Amino acid sequence: MALYTYSQLLDFAEQIFLKMGCPEEDASIASKALLSADLRGIDSHGVARLSGYVRLWEAGRINANPAIKVTYETPSTAVVDGDAGLGLVVAPFAMKIAMEKAKLAGTGWVVVNNSNHFGIAGYHAMMALNQDMIGMAMTNASALVAPTFSLERMLGTNPIAVAIPAGVQPAFVADFATTTAANGKLEILQRKNADTPLGWVQDQYGNDSTDANILKKAGALLPLGSDREHGSHKGYALGSIVDIFSGVLSGASFGPWAPPFPAYVPMPENQPGKGLGHFFGAMRVDAFRPAQDFKNQMDLWIERFRNAIPAPGHEKVLIPGDPEREMEAIRTTKGWELVEAVETDLQAVAQKFGIVF
Amino acid sequence: MALYTYSQLLDFAEQIFLKMGCPEEDASIASKALLSADLRGIDSHGVARLSGYVRLWEAGRINANPAIKVTYETPSTAVVDGDAGLGLVVAPFAMKIAMEKAKLAGTGWVVVNNSNHFGIAGYHAMMALNQDMIGMAMTNASALVAPTFSLERMLGTNPIAVAIPAGVQPAFVADFATTTAANGKLEILQRKNADTPLGWVQDQYGNDSTDANILKKAGALLPLGSDREHGSHKGYALGSIVDIFSGVLSGASFGPWAPPFPAYVPMPENQPGKGLGHFFGAMRVDAFRPAQDFKNQMDLWIERFRNAIPAPGHEKVLIPGDPEREMEAIRTTKGWELVEAVETDLQAVAQKFGIVF
Repeated sequence: MALYTYSQLLDFAEQIFLKMGCPEEDASIASKALLSADLRGIDSHGVARLSGYVRLWEAGRINANPAIKVTYETPSTAVVDGDAGLGLVVAPFAMKIAMEKAKLAGTGWVVVNNSNHFGIAGYHAMMALNQDMIGMAMTNASALVAPTFSLERMLGTNPIAVAIPAGVQPAFVADFATTTAANGKLEILQRKNADTPLGWVQDQYGNDSTDANILKKAGALLPLGSDREHGSHKGYALGSIVDIFSGVLSGASFGPWAPPFPAYVPMPENQPGKGLGHFFGAMRVDAFRPAQDFKNQMDLWIERFRNAIPAPGHEKVLIPGDPEREMEAIRTTKGWELVEAVETDLQAVAQKFGIVF
Repeated sequence: MALYTYSQLLDFAEQIFLKMGCPEEDASIASKALLSADLRGIDSHGVARLSGYVRLWEAGRINANPAIKVTYETPSTAVVDGDAGLGLVVAPFAMKIAMEKAKLAGTGWVVVNNSNHFGIAGYHAMMALNQDMIGMAMTNASALVAPTFSLERMLGTNPIAVAIPAGVQPAFVADFATTTAANGKLEILQRKNADTPLGWVQDQYGNDSTDANILKKAGALLPLGSDREHGSHKGYALGSIVDIFSGVLSGASFGPWAPPFPAYVPMPENQPGKGLGHFFGAMRVDAFRPAQDFKNQMDLWIERFRNAIPAPGHEKVLIPGDPEREMEAIRTTKGWELVEAVETDLQAVAQKFGIVF
């Protein structure tokens, strides 16, 4: 494992996007969105996915030079057709529209169809923060999750991100898959040849499993809550809401028809809509109360929760976004290591385009 | 246990609200909202709570004749001061404003401060359905839930409800506490003298517990996910989002300061805001795509999910809202039984006001 800096990997990703045919501005936007995942410690969604985007482009499923456009709007809503572009580019476009709507109408809500994977949801939600807005981002994704009482993979890991500005305290940033464990957590265990805890996955017959490779054997991830007794019907409902807001409301594909990320997996037949779907929201804080009042109260909220009595063995209670922000501070200055499999992968991508990694 | 009909219990609740001094219209609105919980099988939130509302009114914490008003608004948002009224009355008032906003601006988002418990969130969210709108409702509540890594009760069971219209299929209605198990589930086990499964509660030292009475011994409910390994930080984030949207954004109280439902529990000191808070949303479906297209696709979504391959031992996969709708159909025609403790409670309330139960 070698150490890389943020600017090295940002430059590299930008070069690759340029080689794919992205316009300069898009390549810059996409590489920033992609690298934000590595910076925040969500390694599964960062440069580790770059070769996956390239393969989707090679398969003709990603349009490197899309004409992204608003196809319908009301004072507080808009529909965006991503023209099969990189989700990493389509999502910031849509989030900006949500924020423009919020400036005029108090809130803005934008659905996106005909898109692709957009990296981490948190990056897009956080765009709202420096405008004193609450930002929200959701997306559907390839079906890997079985609903409660089912053997069939019907939903993606369908993340929800909510970013809420504070005053002197850092922002509250929640960004999580609506499953007990995200797919990236399985990948980490696969590399270590380790088992999963019980409650993360089931096998193809619906039995409990601890096999980190079970998705390759027709198993499924479990909704947040793991089983009915522990509330998996709530995780299933949450994942469904994300699918419906992102997919059905937008005119994208949804449920088991959501386009798969691995380019070698064939597209499900009888697509009910176009591409992947996203849902974005922006709420201007001062559409409810003076922004400074709100931010002062958020400081109080954060300080009170951070100082809640910790359980034995824990120093303090965390606020959503704390671990990622701490990781970002470290990685921004010190860089980070890539696992060998990712290095090899990036070298192959570099070679394909005749550039140096 | 005796059998009661819907109209018997509706009439009774209405009489009690009138005796408390509610205007006729408010008594009618409140009793319908309250009874919707019983109809849908959520017995913990229905007439079983009537005496609790009476005690809050006796303690001067509920204003039976409130001047509920909009204190601020933008094209898509509004802030409602509930004037310490019954949440059962304040919530439908606020939800109607959200729907009026949605008619003009595409979506409407209303926060409420200075309110009280509003019954089941699903009832308010479902108000949007016959207008071809997606409805949302959230509320904060008395602190019973410990954040991940904490011993302290900082959050309520903070429910989220989302109601989504369909075409020929019944609507999708999710309505769930952001904890592994709601408090009402503990009450059922207490009556049976039974233990909880592991993962629902912890004791005052943060140890695993199966004691259904642990909340009376300084224990806490656990966020959806139960423990860190199974995603409790996600349930903690969800409960926090509900608290911030309902409490901080509205100017209500929040976190450990949320007013307790039992009237004998003293109000936490140094209240940062006024009363309980709620958050409501209404999104006009045709602010995104033609309503009929959306409803046809929702039918497809629902049919596909209901026909997902069931796990062994299960006949079919459920859609959020299925069990409650089935219960409502049965109870509307056949009535239902009340447990003895609730009957005794209602008899005492009747006697207090000199009416017959």
